[in-house]
Amino acid sequence: MQILKDKIVELGKVMPGNILNVGSFLNQQVDIGLYNEIGKEFFKRFSDVLVSRILTIEASGIGIACITAQYFNVPVVFARKFKAKNVDSDLYSAQVTSYTHGVDYLVTVPRTFLNSCDNILLIDDFLANGCAIEGLVALTKIAGATLVGAGAVIEKGFQQGGKRLREMGIRLESLAIIDSMNPETGIKFRD
Amino acid sequence: MQILKDKIVELGKVMPGNILNVGSFLNQQVDIGLYNEIGKEFFKRFSDVLVSRILTIEASGIGIACITAQYFNVPVVFARKFKAKNVDSDLYSAQVTSYTHGVDYLVTVPRTFLNSCDNILLIDDFLANGCAIEGLVALTKIAGATLVGAGAVIEKGFQQGGKRLREMGIRLESLAIIDSMNPETGIKFRD
Repeated sequence: MQILKDKIVELGKVMPGNILNVGSFLNQQVDIGLYNEIGKEFFKRFSDVLVSRILTIEASGIGIACITAQYFNVPVVFARKFKAKNVDSDLYSAQVTSYTHGVDYLVTVPRTFLNSCDNILLIDDFLANGCAIEGLVALTKIAGATLVGAGAVIEKGFQQGGKRLREMGIRLESLAIIDSMNPETGIKFRD
Repeated sequence: MQILKDKIVELGKVMPGNILNVGSFLNQQVDIGLYNEIGKEFFKRFSDVLVSRILTIEASGIGIACITAQYFNVPVVFARKFKAKNVDSDLYSAQVTSYTHGVDYLVTVPRTFLNSCDNILLIDDFLANGCAIEGLVALTKIAGATLVGAGAVIEKGFQQGGKRLREMGIRLESLAIIDSMNPETGIKFRD
């Protein structure tokens, strides 16, 4: 998605430790025009499948998922991150290990918001090690719903999340895949 | 806003302890059609003022703020909740006490995302004791920006947040104000 790549090059900040700061337009300050283009692009890429619900995870996935949901005209559900080990029996939960932050947490969603008849599209802003999206995949499976695909705005192609999800047979659409990035030499996208 | 009130009566669950669970359509599962109507209504109510940026707080304010921002065609910034006592010098921060959860936390936003020339509209899903919105008011003041108003989807009118914000001279628009609620007798809205 060219306008996204242009925005990443223009405003993204490559920091030491393979961190890409896109807070100024994607995940803390929101460029609403870009969000709309992202929503339309996800709709275009998944226009051949039936989607009944979009599942995302708090916090920065929520805005993108809501804007995208307008084009599909379906509800959004967002999973919550939960530090406690015991969760209510009315929640589905899956354990996630964040390599970035070095912690384990649970992702949870109320059972009533995911049904076995649902066709679920996962949406998130970033895909790096893929832990968050794998947590959402697990929730979808536990609920007995059908996973129709996953959409990530930015995939760090040099980390393993995208590879793992594709090897699991999941249809993954990443709107910009970064193959390498470096504070000196800049960002290189996958064609 | 009648369709919102109807939805609250239809799907909201009044729980003991003055808790209103509207997770099935407002703040965990998102009714995207309703979100669009909410966005339009905020735009209508604040159509006489110049808004340059919408400020909200993670997590459940984000979706509503993004959908609303489409009508104003302005960026959204979301403040983060922060448990640590020391924050980076490139962040504005304000302390918030959550009466609901009995904890203090900081709300923070990068300095570069709030400017003294900004006209800020605050948006959040719930207004009860008003602590979260007061945190956003404080961030706006610290940044030297102009606060043009605050919009809450649901105000618990029997708690003190709305009263306090109005006494501070803040233009507050709540789309549904609940004057009383009770698991037995139901929900009573302010006219």
